[in-house]
Amino acid sequence: MRTSIATVCLSGTLEEKMQAAALAGFHGIEVFEQDLVVSPSSPEQLREMAAELGLSLDMYQPFRDGVEVAPEVFPDSLRRLRAKFDLMRCLGTPVLLMCSNVATAALDDDRAIADQLRQAGELAAEYDIKLAYEALAWGKNVNDWRRAHRIVELADHPAVGTCLDSFHILSRGDTVDGVELLDPAKLFFVQLADAPLLKQDILSWSRHHRVFPGEGDFDLVDVLARLHECGYAGPVSLEIFNDAFRQADVYRTAVDGLRSLRWLEDQTADAVRAAGEDPAREPLVLSDLPDPQPPRAWDFVELRTSKLGQTTRLLHQLGFELAGHHRSKDTVQAWTQGPVRVVIGEDLQAPLEQPTRLAALGFQVDSPDDAAHRASRLLAPVVSRTQQPDETVLHGVLAPDATEIFFGPHGDRGVPPWLEEFGADPAEAASDSLITGVDHVNLAQPWQHYDEAVLFLTSLLDLHAQPAQEVAGPSGLVRSQVMRSADETVRIPLNVAPTAAEQGAYTGAAYPEHVALACSDIVAVARRARRRGLTFLPVPENYYEDLVARFDLAPDAVAELREHGLLYDRDERGEFLHFYTATLGEVFVEVVERRGDYRGFGAPNAPVRLAAQYRTWEETAGAI
Amino acid sequence: MRTSIATVCLSGTLEEKMQAAALAGFHGIEVFEQDLVVSPSSPEQLREMAAELGLSLDMYQPFRDGVEVAPEVFPDSLRRLRAKFDLMRCLGTPVLLMCSNVATAALDDDRAIADQLRQAGELAAEYDIKLAYEALAWGKNVNDWRRAHRIVELADHPAVGTCLDSFHILSRGDTVDGVELLDPAKLFFVQLADAPLLKQDILSWSRHHRVFPGEGDFDLVDVLARLHECGYAGPVSLEIFNDAFRQADVYRTAVDGLRSLRWLEDQTADAVRAAGEDPAREPLVLSDLPDPQPPRAWDFVELRTSKLGQTTRLLHQLGFELAGHHRSKDTVQAWTQGPVRVVIGEDLQAPLEQPTRLAALGFQVDSPDDAAHRASRLLAPVVSRTQQPDETVLHGVLAPDATEIFFGPHGDRGVPPWLEEFGADPAEAASDSLITGVDHVNLAQPWQHYDEAVLFLTSLLDLHAQPAQEVAGPSGLVRSQVMRSADETVRIPLNVAPTAAEQGAYTGAAYPEHVALACSDIVAVARRARRRGLTFLPVPENYYEDLVARFDLAPDAVAELREHGLLYDRDERGEFLHFYTATLGEVFVEVVERRGDYRGFGAPNAPVRLAAQYRTWEETAGAI
Repeated sequence: MRTSIATVCLSGTLEEKMQAAALAGFHGIEVFEQDLVVSPSSPEQLREMAAELGLSLDMYQPFRDGVEVAPEVFPDSLRRLRAKFDLMRCLGTPVLLMCSNVATAALDDDRAIADQLRQAGELAAEYDIKLAYEALAWGKNVNDWRRAHRIVELADHPAVGTCLDSFHILSRGDTVDGVELLDPAKLFFVQLADAPLLKQDILSWSRHHRVFPGEGDFDLVDVLARLHECGYAGPVSLEIFNDAFRQADVYRTAVDGLRSLRWLEDQTADAVRAAGEDPAREPLVLSDLPDPQPPRAWDFVELRTSKLGQTTRLLHQLGFELAGHHRSKDTVQAWTQGPVRVVIGEDLQAPLEQPTRLAALGFQVDSPDDAAHRASRLLAPVVSRTQQPDETVLHGVLAPDATEIFFGPHGDRGVPPWLEEFGADPAEAASDSLITGVDHVNLAQPWQHYDEAVLFLTSLLDLHAQPAQEVAGPSGLVRSQVMRSADETVRIPLNVAPTAAEQGAYTGAAYPEHVALACSDIVAVARRARRRGLTFLPVPENYYEDLVARFDLAPDAVAELREHGLLYDRDERGEFLHFYTATLGEVFVEVVERRGDYRGFGAPNAPVRLAAQYRTWEETAGAI
Repeated sequence: MRTSIATVCLSGTLEEKMQAAALAGFHGIEVFEQDLVVSPSSPEQLREMAAELGLSLDMYQPFRDGVEVAPEVFPDSLRRLRAKFDLMRCLGTPVLLMCSNVATAALDDDRAIADQLRQAGELAAEYDIKLAYEALAWGKNVNDWRRAHRIVELADHPAVGTCLDSFHILSRGDTVDGVELLDPAKLFFVQLADAPLLKQDILSWSRHHRVFPGEGDFDLVDVLARLHECGYAGPVSLEIFNDAFRQADVYRTAVDGLRSLRWLEDQTADAVRAAGEDPAREPLVLSDLPDPQPPRAWDFVELRTSKLGQTTRLLHQLGFELAGHHRSKDTVQAWTQGPVRVVIGEDLQAPLEQPTRLAALGFQVDSPDDAAHRASRLLAPVVSRTQQPDETVLHGVLAPDATEIFFGPHGDRGVPPWLEEFGADPAEAASDSLITGVDHVNLAQPWQHYDEAVLFLTSLLDLHAQPAQEVAGPSGLVRSQVMRSADETVRIPLNVAPTAAEQGAYTGAAYPEHVALACSDIVAVARRARRRGLTFLPVPENYYEDLVARFDLAPDAVAELREHGLLYDRDERGEFLHFYTATLGEVFVEVVERRGDYRGFGAPNAPVRLAAQYRTWEETAGAI
């Protein structure tokens, strides 16, 4: 599949955008007119630069309000077109995007519009240029791809074809049904954009909230599968107007974009194959990624700190036992409790004191090699750990929020080979314990990499995004969205903190991450922890009063919650009891007990936690 | 007018919100339930704290899904109500907000709903509490204030009344027509919220985009005038859900909120008086602010810098002449050209080098004393300048973006008395000059104070907000909105830069402010400036090519633009020629020539400027 990206998706200068697109691995780009207009490089220089980068300039865009105009205005359209064709010849761009008319539409008759389009095509042909006519969702008269294509067919000129843009089609509630029947020779260009389903006017939605495929709610596999069936073999290009992408690092965004296309191509090839067709028969989509490796189990959670004592104390208070120190790395130790393994890396080289923080997550998968190979094809940055020749090789990648993700083998007993490097006896690991597993791990995401993180976890770990929620805290709204594996083995709520410019800015201390441990007797865990001196996050008395009002709980039940500092939630399927520890540096631990089939994460209690953490933060870091 | 504010408008803990509301000068607050639930203070402690602060706790809110429910569920509503009434008694809150049902509505019959409301009212009366029933815009069955009020009338109980919220009414496209006819004894509470007109679902609009009165598009003067006519005398309270306010400094937001109510009360009193009624006859609205003092002329623009030489060179290159040095402050000098006065303050005490920046704006008004008194009543922070006994006193205030704003007297000749302190001869000031005035001044706004800035300029300077635009730059979208005086003497485009977390963050160097000077012969200004060695912001050749394509300009005209590095725009009313200087520190100068009745600001050329500034910034500050 020929991959392309419109320069409007990316931040920086045109030259920076071209370099980033080439470096990420795109075949070509669409040149957004404004990027060229503001560039000091001449079209000839840009053409040369593209050639050096091995990048094709697939399309020049957009040409606005060129057709559908009153006959007396049309000669000026031709004059404007000629100027652009002159430019495109210097630039070496073969296709011009001609949008349906928004501002000056005077014609509403298909044949009359087709006639203007044909005349424009005749002029284009003189320059060996093609016109790709696109129905904008907010086009005044032409806003429907079927009508635009009918007009293209009526124009009946070899230089006139259709451009399809998934956003302009799907945002209107329309479908791509029938795309598979199009004559591919009349389909000049395809733009793909995903978007979250938002209830707002299409123009604002389009200009601010488009995202790369896999980061939104549109079914783009269906779009690409139909293009495949139609026999389309041209560029598949990303045209994403997104406020965050416009500000993010240009190379990261380009990588994110290409990852989205590789993932989408793979998904589509699978879907085509599942439908009984041979994806290799056609040129468009190929399934050349190793199969996704969904996590079969949590392998480990890794903390890093320069305050080792407070970290081991916390683990011991929660019932963990020291499994041992790594045999070749004396700054690394492992603590276990039942199936939960926590690795602690001590920061000794750090010039300054480093807060305790969540550094890495390990997952057990069927084939760590396939997982690593797939990650590499999906352009994930590789993380490597030093190791001795006889030690386990753990494949690792860096997630967009800088968390390291490792793929380990999944054995029958679930005890990983690397644990033996800590001197642990695998036979001991299955002993009874109050903690029964990792319930979920909550990761804080920088807002400008949020969409990238969703796609990263979707494409690499086969996780699925649940609907987003918002939680009110004392310094703003926190956006939260759970990513989970199909069998719920792994659940990762992603949190985006408020930008909080004035409150001391976004910091790990103000909005810590956390590890939630599952148990079947939270009272016992809490009692043991309290005996061992754990500092719980305080729960206000007002909360318990409100709990009584909300749920009509029995006095005994509330007394027990209060005594152990537990929080409570309930839905139609079950109950949820949990407590939070105080924050260590940038991380804290939650312990949860699910009763019945409760599926949530105690979201109604999140404001209690945020408020208590805010008070602590104000008293310490925030007070500086 | 009794002013109140819901704690949900403000950031921080409940205790911080109460302190800020009291310090700003509100009479009371609405206690948002979640703020209380997460607070470690008991209701009794909060009641005591409110008493010490002189703050009344006007309402407890919200009580959700209490009525309109199935008969078998209603006893649980009464149980929940009783728990809240117990709490409110401890807290000392006289009114409970009862929202129309969103989740569990089972009744759609007015009499049946009224019966539940009456029963709830009977229970409330036992606690000496009142219920204010409010139609949420997204209530399942009751979403219209007229229906809610009809149900209240049917309930016919002294403890049952109506709560009106301007957002829930106006967001639906409904009006407040008829509010003036309501029985004020049945109107228990009023919440005011403004909002920009957005085309999106009401729930998201309400939860994220409400703003204080005067910061949005709703006609709240009409709402308040009808309440006045009705005889309502209860609290007028702000209930604003706003993503930025939730993050901003709590005291600033409280001040912004009270300013909005004082301004709205004054506007309403004027409107009531204009309608022939005596505003003093009724208790609700009073016109106790001095009249607004719209700017009659620009008095001065003040730059501050530790690089004096580069600043005076720029002014000289643009044709300014030194008027003199201030007789008692030797770090201050004035430069003039025709009616334009630029004051430069030299930063000598600064420990580090300070960039050249826009520090203050001076406006001539009819009554500087009234302007200062009005500003003070509108809670604007006062700025004072040291001066000798015989020197002019300039009243100054600090705008939300930290620009200082001064009010000077407007004389017939327009030459301000303070200029004589620089040794300038008033008779010389009227000499011919190429520069004919200040066309506009562009101020950069931190995003979290944007709405505050709009209200500040509206309420203090009587400026009016024009529709906002967005301009694409290499590191994100820049939002731009022009504030102008009715006669267009003063035009201030406000710009909000992208958050740009990764690109080196928001800085004055990356997104400078600027002063635009008007002239009637821009070629002459450009020629003189070039001769004197001015560094122009470079305009790319591609821009001129595109200009030809867009406007079909004559070759001569384009050649002249190109020769002098001018940019060009045109609309149906006239033409606009302009150029930009290179940036000095955090400020640059634009020179503009308006031909015909062109009203814009050359917005289509803003991307050219942003791109050129970005390249320069990358080469200097950005490269660090």
